[in-house]
Amino acid sequence: MKYLVTIMPREEALDPQGRAVQSTLNRLGFKVQDCRVGKVVVVDLADGSNESQNLEAVKKMAQTVLSNPLIETFEVRTL
Amino acid sequence: MKYLVTIMPREEALDPQGRAVQSTLNRLGFKVQDCRVGKVVVVDLADGSNESQNLEAVKKMAQTVLSNPLIETFEVRTL
Repeated sequence: MKYLVTIMPREEALDPQGRAVQSTLNRLGFKVQDCRVGKVVVVDLADGSNESQNLEAVKKMAQTVLSNPLIETFEVRTL
Repeated sequence: MKYLVTIMPREEALDPQGRAVQSTLNRLGFKVQDCRVGKVVVVDLADGSNESQNLEAVKKMAQTVLSNPLIETFEVRTL
């Protein structure tokens, strides 16, 4: 079972990587107003547990390992 | 108009970051079989063009700036 975890910088947090990408794109002539850069992690769980247990496990991974809750938000979805 | 670009390492490419995340998760007791790490870029285009032009522009950004086609694939979707 595969799960997609999307991690984005919080709206109120600075996103230096996004700013850098935006300024590069603007320099190349693309009219970009704003740009945010985040991460995606595709997690493939070993079978055995049921789906709701899996989802709980992935949420725990996202909260404790994959994201920094102070500056990032995450979203989990089943693939 | 906002567009979401998801960039993932190709299946056949090594993904050292994914391997590192997987081994960390396994060490912490999560039963993860496989793990791939990619990037997401949310691009907010200045209004003015129509949607199909915008989508073309975002695809061009993804292909030329945001991803490395040799080792990564990308996917664009409207938000």
